[in-house]
Amino acid sequence: MHANLLNLFDRTIREGRLAINNGRIAGVSLLGPENPSLPYILPGFVDAHVHIESSMLTPSQFARLAVVHGTVATVSDPHEIGNVLGINGVKYMIEDGKRVPFKFCFGAPSCVPATTFETAGAVIGPKDVRKLLAMKEIGYLAEVMNYPGVLNEDPDMMAKITLAKAFNKPIDGHAPGLRGDDARRYAEAGINTDHECFTYDEALEKIDYGMSILIREGSAAKNFDALIPLLAEFPNKIMFCSDDKHPDSLAEGHINALVKRALTLGHNVFDVLQAACLNPVLHYRLPVGLLREGDPADFIVVDNLADFNILQTYLDGDLVAEGGHSLLSNLRSDHVNHFNCSPKKPRDFVCQASGESVSLRIIEVLDGQLITNSVQEEVQVKDGVIESDVERDILKITVVNRYEEAVPAVAFVRNFGLKSGAIASSVGHDSHNIIAVGCDDESLCQAVNAVVEAKGGIAVVGHNQTHILPLPIAGLMTDVDGYAVAENYTRLDQFVKQKLSCTLASPFMSLSFMGLLVIPALKLSDKGLFDGDKFSFVPAYG
Amino acid sequence: MHANLLNLFDRTIREGRLAINNGRIAGVSLLGPENPSLPYILPGFVDAHVHIESSMLTPSQFARLAVVHGTVATVSDPHEIGNVLGINGVKYMIEDGKRVPFKFCFGAPSCVPATTFETAGAVIGPKDVRKLLAMKEIGYLAEVMNYPGVLNEDPDMMAKITLAKAFNKPIDGHAPGLRGDDARRYAEAGINTDHECFTYDEALEKIDYGMSILIREGSAAKNFDALIPLLAEFPNKIMFCSDDKHPDSLAEGHINALVKRALTLGHNVFDVLQAACLNPVLHYRLPVGLLREGDPADFIVVDNLADFNILQTYLDGDLVAEGGHSLLSNLRSDHVNHFNCSPKKPRDFVCQASGESVSLRIIEVLDGQLITNSVQEEVQVKDGVIESDVERDILKITVVNRYEEAVPAVAFVRNFGLKSGAIASSVGHDSHNIIAVGCDDESLCQAVNAVVEAKGGIAVVGHNQTHILPLPIAGLMTDVDGYAVAENYTRLDQFVKQKLSCTLASPFMSLSFMGLLVIPALKLSDKGLFDGDKFSFVPAYG
Repeated sequence: MHANLLNLFDRTIREGRLAINNGRIAGVSLLGPENPSLPYILPGFVDAHVHIESSMLTPSQFARLAVVHGTVATVSDPHEIGNVLGINGVKYMIEDGKRVPFKFCFGAPSCVPATTFETAGAVIGPKDVRKLLAMKEIGYLAEVMNYPGVLNEDPDMMAKITLAKAFNKPIDGHAPGLRGDDARRYAEAGINTDHECFTYDEALEKIDYGMSILIREGSAAKNFDALIPLLAEFPNKIMFCSDDKHPDSLAEGHINALVKRALTLGHNVFDVLQAACLNPVLHYRLPVGLLREGDPADFIVVDNLADFNILQTYLDGDLVAEGGHSLLSNLRSDHVNHFNCSPKKPRDFVCQASGESVSLRIIEVLDGQLITNSVQEEVQVKDGVIESDVERDILKITVVNRYEEAVPAVAFVRNFGLKSGAIASSVGHDSHNIIAVGCDDESLCQAVNAVVEAKGGIAVVGHNQTHILPLPIAGLMTDVDGYAVAENYTRLDQFVKQKLSCTLASPFMSLSFMGLLVIPALKLSDKGLFDGDKFSFVPAYG
Repeated sequence: MHANLLNLFDRTIREGRLAINNGRIAGVSLLGPENPSLPYILPGFVDAHVHIESSMLTPSQFARLAVVHGTVATVSDPHEIGNVLGINGVKYMIEDGKRVPFKFCFGAPSCVPATTFETAGAVIGPKDVRKLLAMKEIGYLAEVMNYPGVLNEDPDMMAKITLAKAFNKPIDGHAPGLRGDDARRYAEAGINTDHECFTYDEALEKIDYGMSILIREGSAAKNFDALIPLLAEFPNKIMFCSDDKHPDSLAEGHINALVKRALTLGHNVFDVLQAACLNPVLHYRLPVGLLREGDPADFIVVDNLADFNILQTYLDGDLVAEGGHSLLSNLRSDHVNHFNCSPKKPRDFVCQASGESVSLRIIEVLDGQLITNSVQEEVQVKDGVIESDVERDILKITVVNRYEEAVPAVAFVRNFGLKSGAIASSVGHDSHNIIAVGCDDESLCQAVNAVVEAKGGIAVVGHNQTHILPLPIAGLMTDVDGYAVAENYTRLDQFVKQKLSCTLASPFMSLSFMGLLVIPALKLSDKGLFDGDKFSFVPAYG
């Protein structure tokens, strides 16, 4: 192939020719200086931290959509399916990923269940982590979210970290807002990355303690603008990731979009590509080619280094995407699941109270952030119960155990802004119980039951309609054509915004994080309302 | 293949069957409990630190001899040839190694030249280290011998360490006797291993600072007995290595001998194999199979776990050794060299002095150790010169610059014990100038000139005979059949011991380390006598 060849090691651009043989770079011939009339060949992009499950697609469908954007590899923590199905879920992801020529690097989930304050579908203990780390397909110990466990030297947590060190595999961090001596101790425990920084100063401090920083821009959390200034100063220490990416957004763009944004801001193209291509391959030792002789022939062709349109994507020498079209097969996959609960009744969601009014502890959603605020408001008790108050945007939120029959946990939330109806999802980080928000108990129950009957999915109820996107694989994913899933997802998302008046940018994504206890301040598990700062349950009202 | 299969991850032994396809383990079927009537299959052995050049064999010849002993891989610092030929020497080793199905992992030499107190043939600076680390064939930054440079934060040294971290490749240490806060700071700089411990306590302390310990038992340094007690307590932290292994000793045995010794001492077989097989593969991420499905079919077959006789060795599914015979080809290699000096005259080695006697600063060799003592003795001056004193075992030692014409450096040494004649070698760590010891200036000069005329080799002069083993590749190696080299080497070694009365266990090995300035206490470079404790030149007498 004849093009301008980018050498990310030497930081040079030369006109040259690539010879490819048997899936590998057989030779690199340099012919002269950069020739702007030719396209550009460079290594493909890597999403350095993405939960494939959040795309609601199987790994094979995920890859089919991602290659169009020049993505050739992901570093992926399968802890969503791990929470549902344990190490068998992890193995499912590995095996499904092997069906396509895309370079998935899966981690051993380190925190399943995420906390002891919720009911998950499985436990991945130190012995399971050992089994996973012994697999060559497992590239790292996935995000150590239990930072209190690290700082308090919890024996199980430390055993997993020690195992990762013995297997010489990198250890991923997840420590939102951790600063100072705690951040230093967390890094010194051997944790090498963090993708949870939301300020420049926090990231700078963590770099100082030796960590690499993953700049995250996903469907939910968006930290690009705050953190991209770090790139010029620490090009060795920065990677790009999406963390969670809904199917609609995956259909639109991926790491390529971050590359373009960084270039538009005036960053050096080699700094940008070091973060997008080189650093993750080196850090996680991915089997991804970097255009050296003998490397796997993984690379992309772009029109020029300003527009950066992806013309072609190659994996192991095969063309896998061209001109915006994926050439990977549209594969169906086996359905595996763990779903054991029966439909609920509206009365299961009633909140009884005595007196005339109570002080409600309300989860305040922050659009585009995983953290929430905890606010308190006085609300009226009517006929001995507390109901959603649409006027004041105080809505009921519930988490329903999907692994066994149990009483739903109910609390209140602000900033979804629904004026009617309800939404529900079996994607509820990290235990993936059913999580729902609604304006009245009838709608709330109907949305929950739509998910129960499908044994997984995202549902919306309102205007006398019920819509569902079924997620038959672990209640998290589907093997339907990813582009159809993206369209269906967009339809539901639009319905929630336009018909139910939800004001959030990504209602289902925000919904799914209302159960993520490890990120403060106030979250809901199937067992009750949880204060992430105190790391303990608190009453929803009283 | 039907045998007992050792699983080093689960620490189990089960009767089973291996299916091999296309060089990989296609399937592992377990059939029942251990069956002592069958042989045993386990991963092959790894020498976790060996300078191939010290075998005097090319990598392809080294592999040919090593596979017989069940060795399937080495972690090899090519810094001997690096000192002679720079990064072209490193590339020579890589390319020669690729000609055989043996898994060499080469490092980027970090300290070439070893010191500024000697003349080497090349410099490998930070830019060269960067080029090497960018190569996928380079697996790590090789032994950081310049520990004062690390502790004093020498800019070049730190740049190399920073590069290795950016490329996420392990950093090997070399810090003999470093203890306490200095050892802690050395480890904290990111240096992960040490193969230079000679006491249990020193190793324990370094483990405490996070380092892995390589138990070394080579032709020169032997630390097995002192360090093997660590294995039971720290099976994750121990590897085996030879560091320097002469051809005669490589023909006899390798890591298999250490495995047998450890088992004889009563160590758990899985602890032993973790050190011999598993830990180096994990630490250096070697592409060596570990009997998992999908792994390269690299393994060995032994008769039983007590006698541990190597019946067969397989690499990538091919039988490469059987019943003590190598099935690898006897390959010839290109000759590369760097040798630019002309023959010397006996008068070049004369030591002039005034007065009746002088105080000599003598290098005292310790048999089997790389360190030396520095002793002082009063000697007579006869006719204005100082000569070797065979009676008191005070012999002349010289280092002759082989890269350019220069005046030989001359000093005195004890414990070689030669009664007549001289020995010389172009293997002289780390600069590989010509180093020689002799009983009189005539013999000394004759031995040096034998090496000069061959442009490299080891030579012995005495009893009116001159014998030489030519080393035409960089003055360090030969591509002649390794078994013939071993025999020739043994002949020279025997001649030195039996005819010249040398009392050292390995005269040429000890000779080659008399120029290794980084290991204290007293050594000789082409520029003069060097005090390794003070890290400065000292006068030989006066």
